[in-house]
Amino acid sequence: MKLKKEVMAKYLCGVDLGGTKLSAGIFLPDGTLIEKKVIHEHRSMDEEGIKDSIIRLIKELMISLGLKDEDLFGIGIGVTGHINFKKGVIITSSNFSASFTNYPLRDLVAKSFNIPVIIDNDANAQALGELYFGAGCNYSDMVFITVSTGIGSGIIIDKKLIRGITGTAGEIGHTIVDPHSDIQCACGNYGCLMSLSCGLFLPYLYKKYLSEGMKSSLNLDVSTAYKLDGVLLKEGLAAGDEICQKILQDSADIIGIGLFNLFQILNPEAFIIGGGLMNIGDIYMDLIEKKFLSLVKNMMYDKVEFKISSLGNNAGLLGAAALTLGKG
Amino acid sequence: MKLKKEVMAKYLCGVDLGGTKLSAGIFLPDGTLIEKKVIHEHRSMDEEGIKDSIIRLIKELMISLGLKDEDLFGIGIGVTGHINFKKGVIITSSNFSASFTNYPLRDLVAKSFNIPVIIDNDANAQALGELYFGAGCNYSDMVFITVSTGIGSGIIIDKKLIRGITGTAGEIGHTIVDPHSDIQCACGNYGCLMSLSCGLFLPYLYKKYLSEGMKSSLNLDVSTAYKLDGVLLKEGLAAGDEICQKILQDSADIIGIGLFNLFQILNPEAFIIGGGLMNIGDIYMDLIEKKFLSLVKNMMYDKVEFKISSLGNNAGLLGAAALTLGKG
Repeated sequence: MKLKKEVMAKYLCGVDLGGTKLSAGIFLPDGTLIEKKVIHEHRSMDEEGIKDSIIRLIKELMISLGLKDEDLFGIGIGVTGHINFKKGVIITSSNFSASFTNYPLRDLVAKSFNIPVIIDNDANAQALGELYFGAGCNYSDMVFITVSTGIGSGIIIDKKLIRGITGTAGEIGHTIVDPHSDIQCACGNYGCLMSLSCGLFLPYLYKKYLSEGMKSSLNLDVSTAYKLDGVLLKEGLAAGDEICQKILQDSADIIGIGLFNLFQILNPEAFIIGGGLMNIGDIYMDLIEKKFLSLVKNMMYDKVEFKISSLGNNAGLLGAAALTLGKG
Repeated sequence: MKLKKEVMAKYLCGVDLGGTKLSAGIFLPDGTLIEKKVIHEHRSMDEEGIKDSIIRLIKELMISLGLKDEDLFGIGIGVTGHINFKKGVIITSSNFSASFTNYPLRDLVAKSFNIPVIIDNDANAQALGELYFGAGCNYSDMVFITVSTGIGSGIIIDKKLIRGITGTAGEIGHTIVDPHSDIQCACGNYGCLMSLSCGLFLPYLYKKYLSEGMKSSLNLDVSTAYKLDGVLLKEGLAAGDEICQKILQDSADIIGIGLFNLFQILNPEAFIIGGGLMNIGDIYMDLIEKKFLSLVKNMMYDKVEFKISSLGNNAGLLGAAALTLGKG
């Protein structure tokens, strides 16, 4: 559709560069989606191919909607990976066949437009999305946590993102919560928050409990345990599967410890929790909050709110678009 | 001494309400100490007695120096305990015979003066002291950590203190770094950072290793292990004592994990480390940094500086005075 001139104001443009899909979208300033485009073939492309796909998707949306550069606040790009925010560079990402080592994505995309381009990691972008348009809009100090293939977070203090000196602040997935654990994270350390709780490590936990003699009704053995994901875990839970229940409890306990640690360090008003694994349902959130409260005892003087992300499927895209609002 | 009128500008006034001593001091705006007063008898007083002592010490200093209220920026009070910063209330403190439960110290002291009174916890105050006058003056984003009887921190982002919703942010001592530990913290949880590394828990670690058959040249057994403090630990280290070496390594490893976790969460420019236990010397700091670097691997893109607090004996007092500078 062409947008009517008389209702046109400035629009938001977001790009979500994730491991599974690459999407671009145009939003009204209030966060309402106008149109989006999604591709999956970026997974096998090199860096330049992905960069060109990003530019192409945005151009297609702008043509489709009859928008010129000056009709957009700017272009926000959320990337799953380590980002140097100030330099606009992807330091590294392990989610594509392209490694993006020190890749200056921001400036390369900006060459094709006459408006600001901003890149940040996807958890930071989603935190801003929740702050402006989602479950975080009533808070000044909050932490958005995404529990998905990995675990990441975006920390908001006084309605601004905390990025740190490089831009890697919020990497709670790699905080160590159990140094004597025998589960090694991709980072090389043992007992990281993510290696004990996120989607990527569900198969490790499954194999561990299988080898300890626990029973499972899921049709998985040591060689097929890699298939265990959030969907299968949910099925197992529905069937009363012993190992699935144990994995969920373990994961919730570890995330509860991680949130307790963030509470002690930041004393925020709220935790906003999103990510694919939260689709398991209320039982997961309840276990996380229960663990948190068992640790916090009498050390909480103002209640910390626990909220589920309210942005749904477009969280990453809307978060990226929120980067252009210039307050983060 | 009376200060000469022609050199008088505004002065800083700080009060350090600690478990061992209560001190008050007047400083030049550049942090130079002009005069201070110290008492110890507050330890057996009730809340009102301590509050009156604070007022008396300040008044004595002002009379001694010929200062009026308007010659001071204000009065900053650093307190060892949980503080509600916005309300100016001590929520609780376990360091005095007076419990100070929900005690409105700020407003009660302010009744005796016509200038702003600010209270905060001692670690936050010291972080500001380091930021303005000490080892932190070249940084915008840094964490001050005090390793003493307990462990606390003050977090500086963009040259401002992060206090959180209640004012208890920075309580890194109660973050959990080893949930399977058998050492219980005063907070009731197991495996807190402080319960595995700070002065208060040296005797527990000593008794644990003694019971495991390790040898010590220190003249302490299970019944006298409570005497182990930083000074004795340093003596034991100098004598090559096996248990003391193990305790130091354990403590440094745990603090190294704690700092690594803060690095992942905040990505700061620097860690400034102070507190009585750091008097053990370079060997302790070196072990902490070594552990940190062993965990950080290739995840650090801008170097985090490790610095020893440069404020010395007056750190608490100067930090309290820095509260009045109004930028924190």
